[in-house]
Amino acid sequence: MTAARTVYLNGEFLPFDQARVPVMDRGFLFADGIYEVSAVLDGRLVDNAAHLARLDRSLGEIGIRNPHSAAEWERLETELVVKNGLSEGLVYMQVTRGVAERDFAFPAGDTPPTVVMFTQAKSILANPLAETGARVVTVEDLRWKRRDIKSVALLAQVLAKQAAAAAGVAEAWMVEDGAITEGSSSTAFVVTGDRRLVTRPLSTALLPGITRAAVMRLAAEADLRVEERLIPVTEAYAATEAFYTSASAFVMPVVSIDGRTIGEGRPGPLTRRLRELYLGMARHS
Amino acid sequence: MTAARTVYLNGEFLPFDQARVPVMDRGFLFADGIYEVSAVLDGRLVDNAAHLARLDRSLGEIGIRNPHSAAEWERLETELVVKNGLSEGLVYMQVTRGVAERDFAFPAGDTPPTVVMFTQAKSILANPLAETGARVVTVEDLRWKRRDIKSVALLAQVLAKQAAAAAGVAEAWMVEDGAITEGSSSTAFVVTGDRRLVTRPLSTALLPGITRAAVMRLAAEADLRVEERLIPVTEAYAATEAFYTSASAFVMPVVSIDGRTIGEGRPGPLTRRLRELYLGMARHS
Repeated sequence: MTAARTVYLNGEFLPFDQARVPVMDRGFLFADGIYEVSAVLDGRLVDNAAHLARLDRSLGEIGIRNPHSAAEWERLETELVVKNGLSEGLVYMQVTRGVAERDFAFPAGDTPPTVVMFTQAKSILANPLAETGARVVTVEDLRWKRRDIKSVALLAQVLAKQAAAAAGVAEAWMVEDGAITEGSSSTAFVVTGDRRLVTRPLSTALLPGITRAAVMRLAAEADLRVEERLIPVTEAYAATEAFYTSASAFVMPVVSIDGRTIGEGRPGPLTRRLRELYLGMARHS
Repeated sequence: MTAARTVYLNGEFLPFDQARVPVMDRGFLFADGIYEVSAVLDGRLVDNAAHLARLDRSLGEIGIRNPHSAAEWERLETELVVKNGLSEGLVYMQVTRGVAERDFAFPAGDTPPTVVMFTQAKSILANPLAETGARVVTVEDLRWKRRDIKSVALLAQVLAKQAAAAAGVAEAWMVEDGAITEGSSSTAFVVTGDRRLVTRPLSTALLPGITRAAVMRLAAEADLRVEERLIPVTEAYAATEAFYTSASAFVMPVVSIDGRTIGEGRPGPLTRRLRELYLGMARHS
């Protein structure tokens, strides 16, 4: 933590203050890029292969060449984690379509993608919010139609998260046609009275959450059946338990939605069990 | 044109190669920023007050403080035009929410916005495409729901323009529910057999085009009635004339849509008249 912060940029490990990109970078001008975030526990990357697979898929969907193999990515991430002395937190990775004179259409095919990585120290295991549970508010989902692509065109998510911050809560759940799509930077889940875990099915309308997938695999161990379908907001209000998942929040209990108390207003037993199971998996990944 | 290219960045006029922003700029990480483009003819800005008013509105809609008054903006733009020896082309302006540790919610209120401006030399008056007319293809409109905000979250527009480039044509017209919303970087118009100029009414579903507004004011001089309503794609295919407008294309005749010839396959007389009227206005602005 006391190590000077180091950022990876296009093949170099640079002091934080020197990590700059030209204003003609298409990430800056057009949001023409993709990102991923992997958690780090005890200095080790969590579920990283799945994040790298999604990075590769996202890049392919918008026609950016993946500049590195999964093995190369992991080596660079690991080196960055070591250089930053990071024990617990996140590795952030971003790839853009590179630097070129401003023009909407793609630049010449040999334009090298821009690659940026940095770390953020963060308490993930001992997150106090996981003890009390998070409150969420719902906001209109303003996003584009290809939400399965993890692009840096995040303005709608920024506005959603800011609406949460303005309401003094941790997260915003986005709503479309009366149903919850997902959180501004997380996947939304509810638990029904008959022990069903409900979350929206994958489509172009939401991000295929890596932590979502892991939690669904763990659900059987918590004696939960999984149901992939739309979650009407009214159903979420009446849920027995609720939580959200992300690479940085892991499994985060939700104790109120739009001011309505969920369950008994504290993290529910099934949510706590899923969080425990996920932590066990993450620690041994 | 032979002057070394100069970029404006946060109060400084810098050599092009030195204009770089930190990777933590929210424009780069989140597309959390707004832009504008004003045309330059004979070294003078065209309809610039309207562009600056829209910039101010866009910034307000996403809660970024406008760092400059309109008079200050115009002074900076003019200085940049002079420093670059620009006679004909564009001034590009971008404002982001500034540099801060990565977090979706807004940073501290005193975080200074990032301001970038650069010029691009371009033939606008003697654009050969205006003589032959442009071909366009239609693509699905993938954008978010606040298209009235001119944000840098432009990935959908990038993909649309690339689809046009891949088809060997100049522009893509985006389609939603069977109707044309607008071009990837322009406003779409058609002319009907009874001399009506048709374009989509303003709403959050499209950008309030500055050139669009000017052309609508000029329509009466071309003996055209203006009708603001949805344009079904099938109606566009059968239009007598078609064109698109933007700060850099001015009034651009369209001679085919999805391979279907419009009118007689060359710029129509009413479109040519509108282009002439617009050029007259632009030259004397």
